[in-house]
Formats: sequence, structure tokens, C-alpha cells
Amino acid sequence: MAEFKTVLSDYSSWFNQQIPAFFPVPEGMEKRAVEAMHYSLAGGGKRLRPFLMTCAAKLFGIEQETVLPAAMSLECLHTYSLIHDDLPAMDNDDLRRGRPTCHKYYDEATAILAGDGLLTYAFEILSCRLNAAATVKTELVGLLAEAAGAFKGMVAGQMLDLTPADNLNTLAAEQLINRIEEMKTGCLIRYACEAGAVLGGADAARRQALITYSRKIGTAFQIADDILDIEGSPELMGKTLGKDQQQNKLTFINLYGLDAAKQMAGRLINEAKQSLQIFGTAAETLSSLADFIIRRSV
Amino acid sequence: MAEFKTVLSDYSSWFNQQIPAFFPVPEGMEKRAVEAMHYSLAGGGKRLRPFLMTCAAKLFGIEQETVLPAAMSLECLHTYSLIHDDLPAMDNDDLRRGRPTCHKYYDEATAILAGDGLLTYAFEILSCRLNAAATVKTELVGLLAEAAGAFKGMVAGQMLDLTPADNLNTLAAEQLINRIEEMKTGCLIRYACEAGAVLGGADAARRQALITYSRKIGTAFQIADDILDIEGSPELMGKTLGKDQQQNKLTFINLYGLDAAKQMAGRLINEAKQSLQIFGTAAETLSSLADFIIRRSV
Repeated sequence: MAEFKTVLSDYSSWFNQQIPAFFPVPEGMEKRAVEAMHYSLAGGGKRLRPFLMTCAAKLFGIEQETVLPAAMSLECLHTYSLIHDDLPAMDNDDLRRGRPTCHKYYDEATAILAGDGLLTYAFEILSCRLNAAATVKTELVGLLAEAAGAFKGMVAGQMLDLTPADNLNTLAAEQLINRIEEMKTGCLIRYACEAGAVLGGADAARRQALITYSRKIGTAFQIADDILDIEGSPELMGKTLGKDQQQNKLTFINLYGLDAAKQMAGRLINEAKQSLQIFGTAAETLSSLADFIIRRSV
Repeated sequence: MAEFKTVLSDYSSWFNQQIPAFFPVPEGMEKRAVEAMHYSLAGGGKRLRPFLMTCAAKLFGIEQETVLPAAMSLECLHTYSLIHDDLPAMDNDDLRRGRPTCHKYYDEATAILAGDGLLTYAFEILSCRLNAAATVKTELVGLLAEAAGAFKGMVAGQMLDLTPADNLNTLAAEQLINRIEEMKTGCLIRYACEAGAVLGGADAARRQALITYSRKIGTAFQIADDILDIEGSPELMGKTLGKDQQQNKLTFINLYGLDAAKQMAGRLINEAKQSLQIFGTAAETLSSLADFIIRRSV
């Protein structure tokens, strides 16, 4: 685990060094939007999604330099979702990754535009910066848009999460929380893994194995997030904790209780690791990543 | 002119009939975001950008049915920009196309998500619904993202428009207003024309002719908008007028005066029409469209 943490933090440092090359700052006053985009993107984070994509692509011999534009595109899209999610009309958060949220540091209009800019840029990078066949780029654009979209992707998950659901029986609540998780965070984690397979020209069985893996760790990740919201330290997490509890939100813990939720996460991680068998020892990093997801303290 | 108006309104009716096929409504509560996207997209508008793209592609023998996904994608993107532009933190508008704005009809969080959803969907449609070679799709994704983006596209224009610029001399003000116009509205109008050329496999000269045309009508369009903000009827325009004057915004009219602005728009329209000569009589509709831009009463 200690070794895996080093691998992840080495990748994260390398990734952060690549950011400036993607952010030429305009000369005019419009640069404020680009600066806000950069502020939120460069403000930390584990780079888990880019790392996932990089590990998945590596299974097929693709170098991390080749993956980088697709990884940067995904992190741009993820960061846009954080900026808009933090807005006063949404979750109304003041802190993100230990720093003022984008609308707190700049202002609300700039934060809306910075989010819009990052979302748009995610697709520009895929189309213009990625060195891959046009068919690969087109497939990635389609997969990313679907994963992030309003029909069955991230925007749909956000919408569902904002919609009050009172008086649900246990079964309905269980179905709902799984749908929210799947769409809100699961889709992008799935995309990270599937994009690695697409970049690597994976066959159907290997692509499916990575998708199965991503679904298992995606749910485990959300459960771990709910646990950290209760057990984590605000200093280490860099954000306000306990809000879900206070707002009596539908979480895995509110639904199942802390112990059962932890057991569920553990089971999912084991299943995720089993789905990697087709890759043999080549998938060791992805296997450690699965363990890391429920053992991370931040 | 009367004939052109019929051609445009026939296209617009046809376009509106195609919208439902692009908006399957999800079954769960997340459908609220899709309904809000549909509310704003279906809420009227002249469909000028889709029509421009359709006319440009027609010069190369491409049918409007083939262009439709790219045209729908562009209108989704345009509509997202209106939804976010109307938000309280931005222009804070209550009326759009004669109906309550998205955040007034739904709520602010839903409007933010609906805008995000439409922007994302614009790229999904290009990638998944357009029947074209992967190289064409990739080029369109790149051009659209650049035109809509934060570096030199629409988001940059919005940012610049929100940034107060006091004590400018006339030359600086002139440069600034032209940059705002070019980025805020010009880029998407240019994309509409250029995408038609890309879909049609245009040679460099014809593509450039369409780009020149688009730049001329783009500026004329913005001047006409400024004129309508003063001379238009709120009932016909379906939005609050005179706000730019009240807010003492930098507009072509505040800068040059009404008469000089009108002359400038007329000159641009003539230049736009001249740039179409390479197409001969085939470009008659685009030529009428140029005239329409400064003569429209709504």
C-alpha cells in the first residue's frame, strides 16, 4: 500500500507538471476565465481518474505520454463538475481541496464560465491534442459526452441527487442511491477505464473486464466517500464534512449503517480485483488501486 | 425579403419538428434536467445558426437531413449559452424568447445543469448521431469546442463582456467591442458557416469565402442587435430591452452613435454578399440572409 501511494503520487506530480502546457493564458481581460479554470484544475486532487486511464491503457502497452491528452481532458471535465457542484445554487461549498472554491476565490459568474470553459476544453483536447486515429477520438468524444451527460450520465446523477425523495421504502431507497452513485460518479470512473481500453485497442473481453472493474470500484469509492464524510478529518480532506448527515441525505451509511457499508465496500473491492484476472500480473497496479480506494485516509 | 422570410420560417418549422427525436425523456426523476433542456431549446428562436449551416452545406450538394445532427448540435450549444447567460449571477434575465428563462421556470440549479447538459449533448450528437467520416466528426468537434471555448471563443467573449472597462479611449473601446463581438457571437456564426464547408468537403477558397461571409454578417448581426435593443418592441423581441443602455454597456451604438452604426452594418452586409461571388447564383439564399440580418424587425 505504501508502495502504491508512491506510484500514485509520482504520477500525480508528473501530471501536475504537464498542466501549464495545456493552459496558454490569453493576453486580454478574458484571461480571467482561463485563470479560474487553471486555479481549480491545478488546486490539487489525487488525479485518480487520469491515473486509472493511464493504468488501463498501460495494459495494452500505451505510454502515459500518449494517454496524457485524454487524461487531461477527463480531469478538466471532472474539475468542471466540481466547480459547478460547489456553486451557491448547488451544494454551496466554500472549500474544495483545502482552498476557497472557484466562486469564492473569483466570483459566481467567473466560476460558471470557468466550468463551462473546462467542459468545452475537455472535448477540444480530445479532438485537437490527442495523437490517435480519428475513429478513436470520435469514440472517446461519444463515450465522454454520454458519461457526463444529462440522459444517463453525470448531469443526470446530479439532477437526481438534487431531487428530494421522501417516504421511500428500503428497496426504493436502495435502487435510488445506486442509480445516483452510478450516474454521478460511476460513469466518469467507468469512462476512465473504458477509454484506456479504447486507446489500447482492447478486445471485447478485456474491455468488459475493465468496465466490470470500474463499476465495482466506482460504488466502493462512493461508499468510502460517505464513510470519510463521517470519519475523515476536515484538515486532511480539505472540505467541509458531515454535510450529508446534517442534510439527512440519502447515503450508503444512512441506508445500511456504517458497519454494513464497510463490509459492502470490502466485498466490491474483492470482486473488482477478481475481474482483473484476465490480465494476470500486469494488472497489479489496478489491483492495488482498488485496495487504496477503501483504505485511503484522505 | 418576404420570400426569404418564408424560406427561413419553413426551415425553422421543419427543424422544430425534428427536436423530439433528439430528446428521449429518461424515466426517473433525473428527467427534470432533460425537460429543462427541451424547454429552452424548443422555446422558439429563428434557428439562424442551423439554417446558416444548412445553406452553407447545400452549396456543396449536402441535404438538410444529413446536416441536421450537426445543426441540432449547434443549436443545443447556442441554447446552453443563453441559459447560463440569463442566470442571476450573469445577465439576470427573466424573459427569453417571450417566456420565463430556464431558471425562472425551473430553478437555478436545474438551469445550471440544463446548460451543462446541452453543452455536453452538443458533442455527443456530433460524435454519435452525425452520419459522416470520423475525420469530419473530429474536425467539427475541434472547431465547435474552439468556437465555444474560453481561450478565444464564446466563453472568452462572455468573460470579456462581464469585465468592466472604464476610461478607455475611442481606439481602445473600438478594439474591445470588436473583440467581444467576435468572440461572444461571431465565433459560433463562423462555426455555422465553416461546418457547412467541412461537411461539404469544400476546397480552401470556398471555405475561406464562407468564413469571410460569416465574419461580416456576424458583426452586422451584433450591430443589429444593439439597434434592436433601442428601437425594437419588447413584445416582438420577447425579452427585456434597453438594458444595455441602462447599464451603460459598451455597444456599437454607444460608441459610434445610431446613424453611423446603421451605416456600418449596411457596409458589412454588402461586403458579406460580395464574398459569396465564388458560388454564383447558388448562394442566393445566403445573400438574402445577409440582407435579412439588418432588416429583421424581431
